[in-house]
Amino acid sequence: MSRMVAYMGPTVPLHRIVFDPPHNLLEQARHPREMTYADFNADGFGVGWYAADGNPACYTMDVPIWHDLNLQPLARSLESDLWLAAVHHAREPFTWSRADAQPFCDDELLFVHNGFLAEFAATMRQDLRAFISPEIETSIEGRSDSEHIFGLLRHLLASDPELNMETAIGQTYELIEEWLYDRTALVNVLISDGERIFAGRHAINADCPTLYYTTDDEAFPDGQLIASEPLTESGVWQPVPEDHLLVLDPEEPPELLAL
Amino acid sequence: MSRMVAYMGPTVPLHRIVFDPPHNLLEQARHPREMTYADFNADGFGVGWYAADGNPACYTMDVPIWHDLNLQPLARSLESDLWLAAVHHAREPFTWSRADAQPFCDDELLFVHNGFLAEFAATMRQDLRAFISPEIETSIEGRSDSEHIFGLLRHLLASDPELNMETAIGQTYELIEEWLYDRTALVNVLISDGERIFAGRHAINADCPTLYYTTDDEAFPDGQLIASEPLTESGVWQPVPEDHLLVLDPEEPPELLAL
Amino acid sequence: MSRMVAYMGPTVPLHRIVFDPPHNLLEQARHPREMTYADFNADGFGVGWYAADGNPACYTMDVPIWHDLNLQPLARSLESDLWLAAVHHAREPFTWSRADAQPFCDDELLFVHNGFLAEFAATMRQDLRAFISPEIETSIEGRSDSEHIFGLLRHLLASDPELNMETAIGQTYELIEEWLYDRTALVNVLISDGERIFAGRHAINADCPTLYYTTDDEAFPDGQLIASEPLTESGVWQPVPEDHLLVLDPEEPPELLAL
Amino acid sequence: MSRMVAYMGPTVPLHRIVFDPPHNLLEQARHPREMTYADFNADGFGVGWYAADGNPACYTMDVPIWHDLNLQPLARSLESDLWLAAVHHAREPFTWSRADAQPFCDDELLFVHNGFLAEFAATMRQDLRAFISPEIETSIEGRSDSEHIFGLLRHLLASDPELNMETAIGQTYELIEEWLYDRTALVNVLISDGERIFAGRHAINADCPTLYYTTDDEAFPDGQLIASEPLTESGVWQPVPEDHLLVLDPEEPPELLAL
Repeated sequence: MSRMVAYMGPTVPLHRIVFDPPHNLLEQARHPREMTYADFNADGFGVGWYAADGNPACYTMDVPIWHDLNLQPLARSLESDLWLAAVHHAREPFTWSRADAQPFCDDELLFVHNGFLAEFAATMRQDLRAFISPEIETSIEGRSDSEHIFGLLRHLLASDPELNMETAIGQTYELIEEWLYDRTALVNVLISDGERIFAGRHAINADCPTLYYTTDDEAFPDGQLIASEPLTESGVWQPVPEDHLLVLDPEEPPELLAL
Repeated sequence: MSRMVAYMGPTVPLHRIVFDPPHNLLEQARHPREMTYADFNADGFGVGWYAADGNPACYTMDVPIWHDLNLQPLARSLESDLWLAAVHHAREPFTWSRADAQPFCDDELLFVHNGFLAEFAATMRQDLRAFISPEIETSIEGRSDSEHIFGLLRHLLASDPELNMETAIGQTYELIEEWLYDRTALVNVLISDGERIFAGRHAINADCPTLYYTTDDEAFPDGQLIASEPLTESGVWQPVPEDHLLVLDPEEPPELLAL
Repeated sequence: MSRMVAYMGPTVPLHRIVFDPPHNLLEQARHPREMTYADFNADGFGVGWYAADGNPACYTMDVPIWHDLNLQPLARSLESDLWLAAVHHAREPFTWSRADAQPFCDDELLFVHNGFLAEFAATMRQDLRAFISPEIETSIEGRSDSEHIFGLLRHLLASDPELNMETAIGQTYELIEEWLYDRTALVNVLISDGERIFAGRHAINADCPTLYYTTDDEAFPDGQLIASEPLTESGVWQPVPEDHLLVLDPEEPPELLAL
Repeated sequence: MSRMVAYMGPTVPLHRIVFDPPHNLLEQARHPREMTYADFNADGFGVGWYAADGNPACYTMDVPIWHDLNLQPLARSLESDLWLAAVHHAREPFTWSRADAQPFCDDELLFVHNGFLAEFAATMRQDLRAFISPEIETSIEGRSDSEHIFGLLRHLLASDPELNMETAIGQTYELIEEWLYDRTALVNVLISDGERIFAGRHAINADCPTLYYTTDDEAFPDGQLIASEPLTESGVWQPVPEDHLLVLDPEEPPELLAL
């Protein structure tokens, strides 16, 4: 389980997301308010952005976010007009590793998953790995359900150049449901292609984890944000409806699509 | 702040302390019941024992105890008739380091502190470092209040070969109180010289953290234990009285001394 | 690439292998004498043994062996009549992770590999993963060639309860050669089932890495040892012949089998 | 011992220093050419720069530079017109910690030291700590000679607002020599105040470690660089003379001052 944050808008340094708001990512790690499967997020964290060369970049660590002495100088120095970030609570902490810290990235996309696929390793993992291309299968570094979901999405996109992201996310959810039988899945995701941010709020045989967004928080002028829990007390955050996909575009109003 | 455990009795593998009891050290890290200054202990941990050569040995890590993949094989393999262990919550997490993980040891002693000395770095630290011998001052690796308390105790013992441990602990508390002025100190400690275990429950200008002991828990036949929170539900754990020093000796009944 | 050590004989503490000999494992990490593909081994290390419960236990780290402050107290405290140990130089250091540090173990075996399978991820990996059972495939934590070789060996042993270790190792080498086409493989291995130690010295389309053994080193009375480089200067170490399998048994003289 | 690099000039991403040149910092870690006290630098590394807020920022790690998966994305994303960087070989590796990784910084300065003060802990450390102000003494996090040299320099600068950096560095060297008696010191340093870079090449009772500079390397147009070993083969690197201080200023030609 995780707490996730996404930002799109004017270029801001990382500390504006991680440290400055009253209920910032660090606070959501230490004192989350709306987590149902964990009390804190001490197993790792990460941030993702697009570098000057236009490619995704990720900084991930397998320690509590408040342990990382480098985060403060980096948060004063790294700037971007698009951020994804997460703090993690491992369901199986003794097998958690650095390779499980998110965001994940490939050559184009940033990806964060909050939730879990019940009994993943014993069940769906085989089907999923057999379904995706060898190139993508080989590129999976860890053993988390989250990285495999990202692999599945990448496979769908790579298999059909015409496929748009909204449909690919929908198909990903469908395949998960098919392979899941009657087990439980919590599958909130944040995805970016560098232009837009896609946020899915979805669960199967369970309640959806929380997910909020705002385009009107005075702490982030002209910014659009998504977060597991509102970063501020400003009251302008609203929930993403359950089983919906939210699309943020710098030039368009937020779009909500039923899954 | 920390949760601490000490064991003395028949030789047992480490997992008997860390993993087996219902409210084991791992549980006290993730879900402590009686901590007033923190909700969990994710900043580091350690265990101490006496090696076959008779000298203290410590294994310490600056990660959550549930993150350490090596702990399970070690807990099946390391055996001792005397254990000290702790899990930590750092009050200033961004300056926490491996050197702050406890137990501390020197050539003879094992030491764990649960609590804090308020405003330590800005106040008492200078007095304390000036008071102790250069050899001990130089040997202090980190900057924690806890390691300095251990340094002070070691200095008192080294300065007077006639001084017994009970008196040295009492003098340590007195010096802390003197240098503390009207600030707050929580100073529960566990100390062993390889023969006995000394457990101080003490605070100045504050309530004492909890500390329990038992000599009659059927989960640990013939064992004597001390812990911040009882490891079992057996009902035989009793509190160390506030401002008292408990002395466990393998050949004697537990002794309680008023501080 | 790695430097490997195995010991069988009277119970000894770990420091006898890692720290005490003049050309101990730490020295072989910092100043190896007979490595052809690397100058030092700073990417990780590990030790394996059998715990009191009879099951394998491994302690592995992804830091230089000389960085691990816990190793000294552990080396004074852990004792065994059978040790496997290794220090590693990663061929692709930026993708190296904790999951690649050896020994590997399952419920019965300890395993160390020194060498590499050229272009493993791009070629043989798919064949190998398809060949082995889903249970073993799922249990592979990292992406190293070494862990996959161990997976292949485990699969062969699990598939045929009649298969003895010598034959299983031979079949493993044959399958690797088959999947390798004309590429290069260096495949020195150390394996134990808790009773015996098997040491393969083998390469395909390349020279074999060095591997030595002794049953008569006065620094290890009644001990039998295998190592990439002799631990002592005593002159009683002799090379395992190229393309041979050495079997150490506590009750039998060393046996050399041509591969 | 360390390999150090400094850059001043047009804004460049970090990879231009760490990864791009043929004898980049990563190469100087794995295969240094002119180190006399070590064969490689696997104990830690760091980079320093000035953040957008004008204050120093440091990123330091206690792992081999080639182990840090985050360095590549950071090196594509962090940009500065002034860089200091170093890779380290610990003389006492088992006591090395994160707090010893350089650069060090305070509110204004960046500092890197290559070398050592022989028998520092047992000798000069006491004098030095007694000499500097309590505020600076308290701020020292680790136990390295290097951090104490930086503390001494900071103390001299803080004690006399009129003191310029060149003189403060000279006085630092003089005090070290005084406290050193007849022992050995290697004291190459790189220091920046955000405007200029100061590079001292100095040793006492020993040969100076190498130190080179260039203002005319076509791989760094309009850049000025200093390094333990030339980053490129361009032939325009020249040694800083022994026992000299080099001052780089963006508006002035390089200045060499005899110490």
